[in-house]
Amino acid sequence: MIRLFVPDPLDADALIRPTTEQAHYLIGVMRRGVGDEVLLFNGRDGEWRAALAAMSKRGCDLALREQTREQTPAPDLELIVALVKRARLETIVEKAAELGASRVRLVVTRFTGSDHTNVSRLQAIATEASEQTGRLDVPEVVAPVKLERLLGEWPDGRRLVFCDEAGDARPVIEALREPAPCAVMIGPEGGFAPDERERLRALPFVIPVSLGPRILRADTAAISALTLVQAAIGDWR
Amino acid sequence: MIRLFVPDPLDADALIRPTTEQAHYLIGVMRRGVGDEVLLFNGRDGEWRAALAAMSKRGCDLALREQTREQTPAPDLELIVALVKRARLETIVEKAAELGASRVRLVVTRFTGSDHTNVSRLQAIATEASEQTGRLDVPEVVAPVKLERLLGEWPDGRRLVFCDEAGDARPVIEALREPAPCAVMIGPEGGFAPDERERLRALPFVIPVSLGPRILRADTAAISALTLVQAAIGDWR
Repeated sequence: MIRLFVPDPLDADALIRPTTEQAHYLIGVMRRGVGDEVLLFNGRDGEWRAALAAMSKRGCDLALREQTREQTPAPDLELIVALVKRARLETIVEKAAELGASRVRLVVTRFTGSDHTNVSRLQAIATEASEQTGRLDVPEVVAPVKLERLLGEWPDGRRLVFCDEAGDARPVIEALREPAPCAVMIGPEGGFAPDERERLRALPFVIPVSLGPRILRADTAAISALTLVQAAIGDWR
Repeated sequence: MIRLFVPDPLDADALIRPTTEQAHYLIGVMRRGVGDEVLLFNGRDGEWRAALAAMSKRGCDLALREQTREQTPAPDLELIVALVKRARLETIVEKAAELGASRVRLVVTRFTGSDHTNVSRLQAIATEASEQTGRLDVPEVVAPVKLERLLGEWPDGRRLVFCDEAGDARPVIEALREPAPCAVMIGPEGGFAPDERERLRALPFVIPVSLGPRILRADTAAISALTLVQAAIGDWR
């Protein structure tokens, strides 16, 4: 069944007006008509079954029927990723949503080729992937900041899982034992600069980890690292 | 440094003639000239440093200088993947090479949309990814067979890690404890048919595993499953 993310409160008897794009997708692309059902979620009120109640040229209305799943807490797991090339970054955001990341932060490091990207497009990709993967929330995509600022404003209590290509770090499964808020960081294709790496490894909240003996592309590294954190301390246990 | 896979024996003083495509890549694309160095591997004799010794319109010669790495045994880890759409299948083969799979088998199941693919193109993708990821061998891509035949000819001693979407299977990290030859199987986008799933779960060499609570696309499932097997019993420990 089609799943749509909506910002509105979801409650019995609510009537939801999806966006123009969502209405076009439902009616124009997927050929749904009055009475057909969809699933809705908003990140707060669980998942609800709703029926197409009215259609017009300007859009459609969805009438809520019943809650199909309760909202459950999701692991507090951020992905921090350097601004790699656009196609690869889009893949990474899509996969972060599939793998249950709660937030995607973009970071600019010394060897990052660019300092900006289309955040709203990445947010739309995260939303669509969340609709398809069955989760009850959508990871927020946060605009890029420089590595130094990110580290300077690091919040208490969050661990930074640093995927260190240099090779003497521990495997994720060994390094992470107790569930806690956590962020996984993936560098740019050229890796971190030597002083960035030294700075990272000296910080008390940083846990360096290894992703095996081969060189991974950024998208593979992001997927593998999120998978291992979910398996070690997240909701894949 | 550029790494190239060649079929020839690698030994001190050997002179290697790369393929026309490799010569074009070295000279035409990467602008290498006489005396410039590359790394060569063949899956048997480790990795060797070689220098461009002669160039002509028809190609070039590479003179071996010294061995840079000895051949080391790689985990016996196959990926079995249903024939999903071409772009996704190409991604999966690329990632299987990055993640250290020793072989990629293609399988046709009930809900597989197609029964053929361009195996030599997939093999070329596996070779290129192996060159870039730093491994010392190239995973073989095996032409598609039907699921029933694959299971009927299953070799003694190999476990089949079946990524079961139905959800009551154990996490990979729990299910796999002892290193052994192993194959990871990923179904088509529509999943396995109920009777295929029953047949798989009844076989003594099959280990059903779960890949978390969300629906994963085939490429994400392949990457996550290979990552977890490498972390549990492979060379990521």
